[in-house]
Amino acid sequence: MENYRVIEVKEAVRANNDRRADELRAKLKARGQLLINLMSSPGSGKTTVLARTIEALSGEMKIAVMEADIDSDVDAAAISATGAKVIQLHTGGMCHLDASMCEQGLDGLDAHEADLIVLENVGNLVCPAEFDTGAAVNATILSVPEGDDKPLKYPLMYQVCDVVLVNKIDVLPYFDFDLDACRANVEKRHPGARVIPVCAKTGEGMDEWYRWLRDQVAAHKA
Amino acid sequence: MENYRVIEVKEAVRANNDRRADELRAKLKARGQLLINLMSSPGSGKTTVLARTIEALSGEMKIAVMEADIDSDVDAAAISATGAKVIQLHTGGMCHLDASMCEQGLDGLDAHEADLIVLENVGNLVCPAEFDTGAAVNATILSVPEGDDKPLKYPLMYQVCDVVLVNKIDVLPYFDFDLDACRANVEKRHPGARVIPVCAKTGEGMDEWYRWLRDQVAAHKA
Repeated sequence: MENYRVIEVKEAVRANNDRRADELRAKLKARGQLLINLMSSPGSGKTTVLARTIEALSGEMKIAVMEADIDSDVDAAAISATGAKVIQLHTGGMCHLDASMCEQGLDGLDAHEADLIVLENVGNLVCPAEFDTGAAVNATILSVPEGDDKPLKYPLMYQVCDVVLVNKIDVLPYFDFDLDACRANVEKRHPGARVIPVCAKTGEGMDEWYRWLRDQVAAHKA
Repeated sequence: MENYRVIEVKEAVRANNDRRADELRAKLKARGQLLINLMSSPGSGKTTVLARTIEALSGEMKIAVMEADIDSDVDAAAISATGAKVIQLHTGGMCHLDASMCEQGLDGLDAHEADLIVLENVGNLVCPAEFDTGAAVNATILSVPEGDDKPLKYPLMYQVCDVVLVNKIDVLPYFDFDLDACRANVEKRHPGARVIPVCAKTGEGMDEWYRWLRDQVAAHKA
């Protein structure tokens, strides 16, 4: 038997989403829990980043995870292996999560003890950016093989993101990816957004991400 | 001045989409024009595959292209450089194209002489799969860095696809990607779907894709 639950989450009326997201954010802030909405294209490495982050930080903070997928349990099984509390959210074909779906997930997760809760959103650079989930922080991963022009082509995703992890930097020699151009493209969409080059597989650069995350968690409890 | 037009396309009422798609498909069939709907994640290599295909086949058939993007003209500019007739469709934030938007694009493209028309859809593995564009053939690209599990995680995309190009096989040594597992995952979603491993950058494997495409164009005229 798998040691995570699977629940189906349903979308609420869109007009109410911003209000519900604000309410959820306030509720989590009052509890001192930091919710991060982790987004990216399919295959950018969300789950690998998350598994490595849990491994590195679980000794110093309690981390719980909501895995949102259209249909499969592949990611929940992977995260479950780290020992973190995890729930699989099935969106029933839906391409994104809204604040109501996120709240249904939090109810199912039942992780009042967690300092950090990560929502791994559906792999999609378009729709998830349009819906406020109630998270305090939006993070996106851009992997080197996708190209440095993605902030130009998917503007809203980069506008709403507070931090961009440039993942798979171990394969930089094999791709036409210009890190400076990437930084400039992100800056164009969201001036001041933090860009952190990493390789979740080898661990390169991950310390900067952990530091950033620790600061966010601490600031949220203050 | 760029030698392509840019038009804004608007979505129709969803209930009518299947009927409009069937009508569009019949109209194109009557003209002997093959419309291919090319889909994938952001950064899988749709534009590179397309540019190389035009270069290889433009001596033997007339090819025209509709580039659908949320906002930018990056791809239309790249395809325009091949000399092919191209139009940029802006979806105004929309994550997919439906049959009506596709038809607006075809009207703007005005390519009655084309044997093959390629619609490069918005980079997204979720929403584009839900909307019949009126294309005779659905193609998707799965790039090696994304992982061989994508057909498990984005089921509908692989159900609706007739052909899957596994792109960027030049970097197979640097990623944990199992081509046999990928084939099995595609077969699970769409029994009989064609899987063609390629590298659009180096040209490896592209001849099989060209042969497949030639056969489709010829069958469509028959």
